Formats: sequence, C-alpha cells, structure tokens
Amino acid sequence: MSDKFSLKNAQAMDDADVLKNLRSRFNLPDGIVYLDGNSLGALPSSTAARINTVVEGEWGGDLIKSWNSHNWMNQPRVLGDKIAKIIGAAAGEVIACDSTSVNLFKVVAQAKSLRPNRTKILSEEGNFPTDLYVLQGLVKMLGDSASYATVPTAELMSAIDKDTAVVVLTHVNFKSGAIHDMAAISKHAHDMGALIVWDLCHSAGAVPLNLSADGADYAVGCGYKYLNGGPGSPAFLYVAKRHQTAATSPLTGWMGHANPFEFSEQYNPAGDIERNLCGSPVIIALAALDEGLKTFDGVDMADVREKSMALGTFFIELMEEKLGAYGFELACTKEASARGSQVSYSHEHGYAIMQALIDKGVIGDFRAPDIMRFGFAPLYIGYVDVWRSVEILKEIMDGDVWKNPAYATKSQVT
Amino acid sequence: MSDKFSLKNAQAMDDADVLKNLRSRFNLPDGIVYLDGNSLGALPSSTAARINTVVEGEWGGDLIKSWNSHNWMNQPRVLGDKIAKIIGAAAGEVIACDSTSVNLFKVVAQAKSLRPNRTKILSEEGNFPTDLYVLQGLVKMLGDSASYATVPTAELMSAIDKDTAVVVLTHVNFKSGAIHDMAAISKHAHDMGALIVWDLCHSAGAVPLNLSADGADYAVGCGYKYLNGGPGSPAFLYVAKRHQTAATSPLTGWMGHANPFEFSEQYNPAGDIERNLCGSPVIIALAALDEGLKTFDGVDMADVREKSMALGTFFIELMEEKLGAYGFELACTKEASARGSQVSYSHEHGYAIMQALIDKGVIGDFRAPDIMRFGFAPLYIGYVDVWRSVEILKEIMDGDVWKNPAYATKSQVT
Repeated sequence: MSDKFSLKNAQAMDDADVLKNLRSRFNLPDGIVYLDGNSLGALPSSTAARINTVVEGEWGGDLIKSWNSHNWMNQPRVLGDKIAKIIGAAAGEVIACDSTSVNLFKVVAQAKSLRPNRTKILSEEGNFPTDLYVLQGLVKMLGDSASYATVPTAELMSAIDKDTAVVVLTHVNFKSGAIHDMAAISKHAHDMGALIVWDLCHSAGAVPLNLSADGADYAVGCGYKYLNGGPGSPAFLYVAKRHQTAATSPLTGWMGHANPFEFSEQYNPAGDIERNLCGSPVIIALAALDEGLKTFDGVDMADVREKSMALGTFFIELMEEKLGAYGFELACTKEASARGSQVSYSHEHGYAIMQALIDKGVIGDFRAPDIMRFGFAPLYIGYVDVWRSVEILKEIMDGDVWKNPAYATKSQVT
Repeated sequence: MSDKFSLKNAQAMDDADVLKNLRSRFNLPDGIVYLDGNSLGALPSSTAARINTVVEGEWGGDLIKSWNSHNWMNQPRVLGDKIAKIIGAAAGEVIACDSTSVNLFKVVAQAKSLRPNRTKILSEEGNFPTDLYVLQGLVKMLGDSASYATVPTAELMSAIDKDTAVVVLTHVNFKSGAIHDMAAISKHAHDMGALIVWDLCHSAGAVPLNLSADGADYAVGCGYKYLNGGPGSPAFLYVAKRHQTAATSPLTGWMGHANPFEFSEQYNPAGDIERNLCGSPVIIALAALDEGLKTFDGVDMADVREKSMALGTFFIELMEEKLGAYGFELACTKEASARGSQVSYSHEHGYAIMQALIDKGVIGDFRAPDIMRFGFAPLYIGYVDVWRSVEILKEIMDGDVWKNPAYATKSQVT
C-alpha cells in the first residue's frame, strides 16, 4: 500500500487543514464517523444552551413580551440575512420559514403567475421527489393554466421552450451529487422567456453559491442538512429583489401582511421579502437554526469547497485502492468539481452493507434501489474520518459482516 | 366592599379549586399575573429538560438514526392523537404540523375540491385576519371556480346558500371571545349542501369540544395558546374520517406520500390523515408541543371549562364592583356559557392602560382599535390572580399611572 493511503498521511492532511478547528464547534459522539451531514447536520456545541436560554429565559421569563423584547418577530428575516451571506444573495432577499416543500409551493406559484400565458412547469427526472410532488400538486390546483413535465437531464436544455413558464431544478442532486451549472441554465431559461427556481437543499453550506450573479429568480433550501439547524429545522426561500413585489405568495398568512398587527380584514402584502411569510415563526426551532448558521461564522466557502472536494476524492481513491474488487460502483462523477459534498456508490447489497457500517459506527445512508451515500461536511469531517470509514468498510466486506440477517431488514426510513 | 370581593374569598376559591395542583406543571415568573395564555401559553416545567434530551441525547447522540430509534418520524401522528383527545376527535383524525395558516389553506382547498360546482367560500366579518387572508389567497389562486365572501355574524346562517361550497369560521372569536354553536351551524351548512371548516385556535384546551358529534368536516388549530406548545409551535389539523381519502391536500410534499422512502417520482397520497403532511416534521418544536399537551394529562375538560367560566365571571364582577365608573366597557358577553376563556374590555385609553398593567406585572394584551384582552388559562390561573389583577388595575387608574408618556408609544406588536 502506498504511503498516500496510510493513516499517517490522513493525519498529516488533517494537521494541514485550514478548517480543522471548526470541528470544536460541534458535539460529535465518540467513536462515530458521521458521513450523513447531507441528511441531518451534526449538533453544534452551542445549540443546547441557546435553546435553553430561549425556553427558560425568554419564553418562561418574559412570556408574550419576548415577541418584542427578544426580537422573536424578526427572526425569519435576521436568519434570512445570515443565510444570504452563505448562498451569495443580498440582504433582504432570503427569509427563514416553513419547510422546503411549503416554500417551493410558494415560489413556484409566484413564478408561474408571472408567466400567465405559458403553461409548462418543467423539472427533470431524478429530481428529489418532494420537489416533483409539490409541482404535481400545484399544477393540479392551477387546472388548465398549468402543465407538469419532467425530462431526462440530457434533454433539459432543449425542453425549455416558448411554452415553459418555470424551470424547477435541484442544484446538487440528492443521489448522484451532480451539480448543475446554475449560471448557464438560468441564462438559457431567461433567453427562452422562462423563470427559474433552484432547490439548494444539497448546496447551501456545502458549495459556494452566487444566486445573484448566476441569475436565479427564486430559490428554496433546507436548514437541517449542511446548515446544521437540527431535525426538521425551518427552511428558507430566496426571491431576487427584481421579483419581490411583482407577485404574491399564494399562502397569504398574517405574517406576510404589510402590517399584521393592524388586524385589517383585507390582505395587503408586505412590500419586501416578508410577504413570503405565512404563519407565526417557530421560535425554538429558529433559535436552533441560528446556532447552526453560526458554525459558518468567519468561514470562507471557498475553503469549504476545496476541502469538500479533497475529502470526496480521498474517499474515492481509498475505495479504489482497498475495495476495488468488491462490487462497489461509483454512482457519481469522479470529477470533484462536478460533484457536491457527497460521494455515492451503488452495490447489489448496498442496503445491508450500509446497515452493517452504521452498526460499526460509520454513519452514511441508503437511497433506493441500491445507492449508498457518504456525505462529507467539511466543517466537522476530516481525512482520518475518511480513512477510518474505508478501513471499517473493508473489515465488513472481508468478514462478511454484512451478511448478518439483522442487516437485511428494511427498518431504516431515512 | 362585600366579602365576595375580598382577597380572603379569592384564596378560599383557590383552595377549593379541583385544578389547583396543575399550576405546578408550569414555570411562572414570580410576581407576575399572566393573563395572556390565550396568546402564548405559559412554559410547562418539563419542557426545558425534554428539549435538552431531544437535542443533546437524540440529535447529538444518535444523529440521523433518531428518525427511527426515537420515533421522530411519527411525532406528527403521535401528537395528533393526543390533541384528538382534547378536542373530541377520534384517533387518526388529527395531525400536528406546519402553522395554522398553512393548515387552513390545506383543508379549505380540500373542502372546496369536494364541492366543485359551487363557488362560494364564506366566512364572517371579524374573523381572525389570517383566516380571511388565507381564504383570499386561495380564492385568487383558484380563479373563476371560487369566490370569497364575508358577512356580519348575524347574517351568517342566511348567507349559507346553494352556492356555498365551504363555510370557514373560528369557533371562539379572538377579540370578543364569543362562541359559535358548532353543532347548529355545522348542521345548517350540511343541510345546505356545504362543508364546514372550524378554526379552533381559541378553543383547543380552553373549552370542551366534540368535533365528531358536532359534525365538523375539517378543523385547524394552534399549538402555542392554551395547548402550551411554545412560541410558534406547530399547529394541527383535523379531517373527519369520512373525508380523509376523498380529497388531497394541495401541498403535496413527501411526508404526505404513501411511502416517502420509496422515492417514486409520482405523488401517491397516504391513505389516511398523513396525506396532510408536507415537509419534514420540526422535531424540536414538536417535543415542546408534546410537553404542552402533557399539561392536560388526567384533566377533565369539563373541569377546565367550569373554572374558566368562574374566573371570567369573577373578573367581570370585580371590575363592576371596583372599576365600574372608570370607562371600561365590556366587549364580550356577560353570559359565561357564551364566551371562551377570555374577557375583553374596550377603553378609550386601552393601549396605554394595558402597557401600564404589563409594566406592573399583569400581562394581558391589546387588540386594535381599543380592546384590552384578559385570558384565563384555567390550568395555571387562580382566583387570587384575578383579584390581584383588578387591584393593580385600580391602582393604575386611581394614580393616573397610565398617563405616563412611556405607555403611549405603540411598540408592542403582539
């Protein structure tokens, strides 16, 4: 085995890592290699204390007054501005609220309303299912004025035509990790007169983004993956400044009103990003998201990206070197620049092997039918983690550990 | 002053209160009389520890595995079943998710889809604004197939006609506390061929409900008022068993899919209440809601109602006795059985007086233009609290304390 694949070399790479000190911003259990930050980000070390302050100090101590005195009312906007910095948007273009799915409904409906004479809402096969489901529900509701279409990725550009109202794409694919060229596709959509909505669930906090420069019209994203906001964290949505007063969210709740506490009976949307709010903000969950966002304080997303690519490449090289003949087929591109912060393999026994891995302390996940996903969150994953994960995988394969019948039962849902 | 209005009598009533021990289920700040549980319920004493377990033990310790091992995935349903017991619904008819506003959109859209040949979605003037806003947004989206109408409460029954698809009403009015006759209005709506949606925000946990027997088709409600789920807590929705597979929520997110982890590209709604879910459940906030619901463990809603009426009546009698000539005009019915768990007064200087009261430790709230609201959450408010609140209000009026210019500034938003 060459020195490149030694533990010593992995340790040397960790020592040289400019982001190595960020791991102390998280509480990770001992003995675990956590390669699932792309599904649920790790717990920031500050989150529990912050939530306790919000619960006992603010809610318990100051009760209803906290909406003002602790600025609860503005948390969706305050956090939106923090997310904006991470995704390359301007202040006032992002707001934290609701779930990704609900937010997608809001922004696609708005985008469609700006193209009333075009029917098609276009996405691609293999997009994350909830995105497709939301589009199906929206189109059903809009009746004859809208239609739903998906095409294979290779046909995407040609499918954007003069009847396309809105293109809805996920920037980094949830299974393959493939990255779309946001600037090129956005430009083509605009050239064809369509609007574009980007789902950033697997991008935000993992790859550098520049929504403004790359021409995104609308976007949505998730708080609980790379942003470390906790299970089911509030999501976010982005509306480019140029569209903010052109359309109204179909979910016209009081928090999106220009003056919610005037209690008028006629909806009058706020004149900015806040018109995209609906119900009352989930304060405790937003506090957790805020601590997640703080793990990015002072972090250069270019450094995150560089490390992310290096971790993935190291993993692929180790897999080739040590497990080249074990039936693992790379299910993502080898080209690091074309891949998000995850690596996927397909394997005939992928489900059982992943269960064995999890049982041995290497946590990745499985996506039907046969995809094993390994996520590398650069804020808390290092090269020794990568090295250990492949060592343990080799032990599982060499020892036929995965053949234990307990690992065949499909009880895992996420 | 008669003995009825003495502190000693208030203490005696507290001593005789069958619910008096429930106050220990809450952490209330010393020296505060909290009469705003109708806006934000008090902090249960178990909430902070439970959240800490979820954050540090479950999320931090077991990470992604917690979706299964700590039953995160089923929390919307588990909590829904607990809420069902409080609101007189059957197991499987309620689910905890999203905000009240988002849930209202979901259920009214479904109800409307079951009456495709009728256009009118009817509500009443004076309904809580977000309900009206949501209906306005929905109707705008549905185009010519739907129309929006509100009528004064007195004209409600006659306005339900052969073109009425859905009637949307709030059971207990947010300002006046007036209670609708759910059974009678539901029956009339059905007789006219319409469906009815009830908003239970000011009812759930405050008044006994029997959704099944009273004929409700759909309902929504809030987790952060009388249910003590915390600021911006997830809300709930109810769908009567008979309608559960008849219509689909327009917000077709993956959590409402029959098999979300099959990752099929075609939406296939769950065959039960779960089709009303959309995005990922907000686990930390749901844990707080669960602790809020536990404050109702072993509590008979008939006892809650009896105490609620008695507290409100005691307050009104004290106000008449001690502040009868100070310009306070009762803005709710004197008839306890026709009123929710709150008492409202209008006063020319209501805003400033309420700010002075809050400053002196009696927390109620103000609703434009001139309504002072006092909520009596029977689980943690007693007769001495009521007595003290009126004493302090009298001091504020007698001492012209409310004239302090600091109390005139409208900074309070909730």
